Amino acid sequence: MAEGGKRLTGTVYGLGVGPGDPDLITVKGLRILEAAPVIAYPATMEGESTARAIVDTHLGNGKTELPLFIDISAGHAANAPNYDKAAAAISAHLEAGRDVAVLCEGDPFFYGSFSYLFARLAEDWPVEVVPGVSSLTACAAALGAPLAAGGDILTVLPASLDEKVLRQRMEEADGVAIIKIGRHFPKIAKVLEDAGLLANARYVERVGFADERSLPITEVKADEAPYFSMVLAHHRGEAWK
Amino acid sequence: MAEGGKRLTGTVYGLGVGPGDPDLITVKGLRILEAAPVIAYPATMEGESTARAIVDTHLGNGKTELPLFIDISAGHAANAPNYDKAAAAISAHLEAGRDVAVLCEGDPFFYGSFSYLFARLAEDWPVEVVPGVSSLTACAAALGAPLAAGGDILTVLPASLDEKVLRQRMEEADGVAIIKIGRHFPKIAKVLEDAGLLANARYVERVGFADERSLPITEVKADEAPYFSMVLAHHRGEAWK
Repeated sequence: MAEGGKRLTGTVYGLGVGPGDPDLITVKGLRILEAAPVIAYPATMEGESTARAIVDTHLGNGKTELPLFIDISAGHAANAPNYDKAAAAISAHLEAGRDVAVLCEGDPFFYGSFSYLFARLAEDWPVEVVPGVSSLTACAAALGAPLAAGGDILTVLPASLDEKVLRQRMEEADGVAIIKIGRHFPKIAKVLEDAGLLANARYVERVGFADERSLPITEVKADEAPYFSMVLAHHRGEAWK
Repeated sequence: MAEGGKRLTGTVYGLGVGPGDPDLITVKGLRILEAAPVIAYPATMEGESTARAIVDTHLGNGKTELPLFIDISAGHAANAPNYDKAAAAISAHLEAGRDVAVLCEGDPFFYGSFSYLFARLAEDWPVEVVPGVSSLTACAAALGAPLAAGGDILTVLPASLDEKVLRQRMEEADGVAIIKIGRHFPKIAKVLEDAGLLANARYVERVGFADERSLPITEVKADEAPYFSMVLAHHRGEAWK
């Protein structure tokens, strides 16, 4: 399109769709989702996409869909060619004047893959990031577990970290969230005990999805925690009055 | 109300209204807000309420409004009688069978005062916490600054903390968010420099409000940072590809 000699290009939206419950998308996010002619979303090599599934009930007809294939068994560096390819596919739509909504589970900048796309797109195109409800606060809500207040330090720890690092950081924070637990569950249970936090720790998996489940950490079986699971613990325990 | 001999009481909702932009409330939050006969919200002793202001355009007529007076110049312990009073006022509506939506800026469990009400209400009444977009992810979106990804440690640090603690925690994390800056700005600027993070630090104030402002940290005047301001910094800097 041309207007006074200036080409009009599309805008790319990093659209936080929330942690799972379709109604935890924001009013703004829903409006952008409905208006965007193109929706893009991270997908496994087999084409499965959690972000796409979250908004499924909100999608009308007539959208162009652009799955962005990411190899979830590989790390971020190994996926660089996939992110390059995804950015190029998005850019082609922007170049043609079409807005693209990139669907992001939870919030785009909270442990999502959108950061890697943002780094490839932000210099060349108008990018708007629409924040979403993160799994962090959704898990706290589901567990009835305050994350932090007042002068508290709150630390988010991926479960893949080294045991010593995990323990030290747990001891130094007031509130901790241990994310992406999966196969690391036995290590996490041990570190929580070593850090004196086991009695205060609460576990939830697949928050916001139909199979969401929370249970005492002592009842989680060692090999059954999925990747989308989280433990919250606060040194204050129940003493919030 | 009576049903088969069982009294029906109201439900109290801890309702995250998002960080400022009225459209960053969730679809679920908006639905609960519209349906609740009673809305309660933290207010200064003079009756001013940020949470109430955020949802103003969403409110229809006919709501009973219940300001919860909190002395913001005092700490949480000194406010205990105010929280007790607030919980009693909410309980009276619940007892009478009316649902109460407690409006919470951002997310109810992320550095909000709702945690103190929750501790007073959760044993006696049905409580549902509705997560919201936190200022943490809203600031990241406004700044175009990813918070964390992959195996990163993310730490949230209130600016009131001791200089030595701030510096150590900044050095030990990958991404840091320094919140509630206000009069602590000069200390924060110094610690960021000492921790080698000044070049990566980005500042935003009053995110989502009409007077939102972001600027390079070197251009913030020492005495002008408001309480609702935040600095984000990541040791990775701009290297997100």
